[in-house]
Amino acid sequence: MKKALGIDIGGTKILYAVLDENGNILSEIKKTKTPKTSEEIVDTLKSIIQEYDNEIDVVGLSSAGAVNLENTMVLSSTPNLPKGYNTIDFSTLSDKKVFVENDANCAVWAEYKSGAAKGFNTVLMATIGTGIGGGVVSDGRLFRGSMGNALEVGSLKIFADKRRKCTCGRYDCWESYASGTGLKNCAQEGAKEYPEFETSFLKHKKPEEITTYDITEGVEKKDEFCLKVFEQWQYYMFVGLVSLTDIFNPDCIVISGGMCEFVDTQKLEDMINAESVVTPVKVKSALTKNNAGMIGAGLLALM
Amino acid sequence: MKKALGIDIGGTKILYAVLDENGNILSEIKKTKTPKTSEEIVDTLKSIIQEYDNEIDVVGLSSAGAVNLENTMVLSSTPNLPKGYNTIDFSTLSDKKVFVENDANCAVWAEYKSGAAKGFNTVLMATIGTGIGGGVVSDGRLFRGSMGNALEVGSLKIFADKRRKCTCGRYDCWESYASGTGLKNCAQEGAKEYPEFETSFLKHKKPEEITTYDITEGVEKKDEFCLKVFEQWQYYMFVGLVSLTDIFNPDCIVISGGMCEFVDTQKLEDMINAESVVTPVKVKSALTKNNAGMIGAGLLALM
Repeated sequence: MKKALGIDIGGTKILYAVLDENGNILSEIKKTKTPKTSEEIVDTLKSIIQEYDNEIDVVGLSSAGAVNLENTMVLSSTPNLPKGYNTIDFSTLSDKKVFVENDANCAVWAEYKSGAAKGFNTVLMATIGTGIGGGVVSDGRLFRGSMGNALEVGSLKIFADKRRKCTCGRYDCWESYASGTGLKNCAQEGAKEYPEFETSFLKHKKPEEITTYDITEGVEKKDEFCLKVFEQWQYYMFVGLVSLTDIFNPDCIVISGGMCEFVDTQKLEDMINAESVVTPVKVKSALTKNNAGMIGAGLLALM
Repeated sequence: MKKALGIDIGGTKILYAVLDENGNILSEIKKTKTPKTSEEIVDTLKSIIQEYDNEIDVVGLSSAGAVNLENTMVLSSTPNLPKGYNTIDFSTLSDKKVFVENDANCAVWAEYKSGAAKGFNTVLMATIGTGIGGGVVSDGRLFRGSMGNALEVGSLKIFADKRRKCTCGRYDCWESYASGTGLKNCAQEGAKEYPEFETSFLKHKKPEEITTYDITEGVEKKDEFCLKVFEQWQYYMFVGLVSLTDIFNPDCIVISGGMCEFVDTQKLEDMINAESVVTPVKVKSALTKNNAGMIGAGLLALM
């Protein structure tokens, strides 16, 4: 069985391990700080690859940004990675095959091949963190679009009358309602509108001081204001997911990201299946967690 | 060069002709009324195929409804076609290969192979008629989803607060804002809100009497109320299309359907490219028009 070195290049750390074709991790998972210049990133990656050179057949890299259709370079700007990063030709890092793919695409591939979506035909992943990212696999292929930019699902508009300004400068992006940031936005607006705020444990706070964490904490305490905000937030998540279900006809949706643990996947599944016009879908939580990018990149490189 | 018999099974008529691999129509385009029972549909299709049996290599059928992944049957209910239609195994109609595909998928394939989107990598078609249908081709493949139901783009929600009830019973479907029906809805709501209605040539009408045709007629007359309604309608069309652009990263969007002639494709293209977060897209009007289903079905059968 062939082996891959999977490497996840994040804004703060680089994570790596050796994998087999089933996505099993065969070595210790190591991490190192992401260097501050693109030259140092190249050197670091070269020395990581060198370390495993005798054990592996291919190298898979997971990275933020849009990747070219040849899977050799990251073309778009990547705010958390240094200047010059988008000029690196990753295929030159080794004599072996080096394959780079967008982190969201790697993550959905990891879940499809060895995670929660194993055995499904069409898998939509929604990564709910500070923003919302996405990926789709159907019939054994990643959906990448004309230039590798597809599945920018965070920008899906869920209102058409310029109601809430998103951090991106546009209006009514799904991620300004249904991400971690969206939960904070729902809370800050709710504090001005919902009578439940008057009896909440958060009532001493100014609306603009309420955080995402305050709400998840309040939900655990069964605070009525926080429960109401949370329900509205999850409704917004449903609105985006049911549209994406009608668009992609997935048989499995995987929810991942930092907010994943707070999401009631069974409730979302029931709501989506009651409303969508396509065949029923399963909604699941991701299994590969922080290793998703590394595992997916390795498995894609082994294809 | 191989030849296909392309057949478009519509609710009122069946359209058919012989095509080559480039989508050129080689015979007279014929039509016949769609029979009222599924047994008669089978007989009619058999006799049409018999007529061209010596000339053709394969048969391609375009039909409403979701088609199974083997492209032999229409699985979903099809309101404009008779009872029993979804039990027909189209592969038994001839000794030759018979291939059936959803009409929207056939239409986008026709535009991709021989129409306005020829040469593009990722093509999104939006068919704007009474409702809104859609199809996507990327990297040489139709996107079909897990059960052939994908691209139900008419159900994309463009508001998340249950504002306008759609004819389907759900709320805020894109097609209740941006289809032909949507234009009528925008007009009927606008008549109650816009001061321009008082000076419109439609002012003698009750809001609920205003039709889609009234507005397109008024736009030609440069009636201010109709222009305002139309602009709002086209903005709603933009809202759905920019979301779909961020989701699919198409390099070409093709607009087809009965409302296509009224759409300002250049304006939509400019609006989408100013707002989307992915690489730029071209917006074009469909070229294959009423022959799209027939041509696409024939070309798919020849694959």
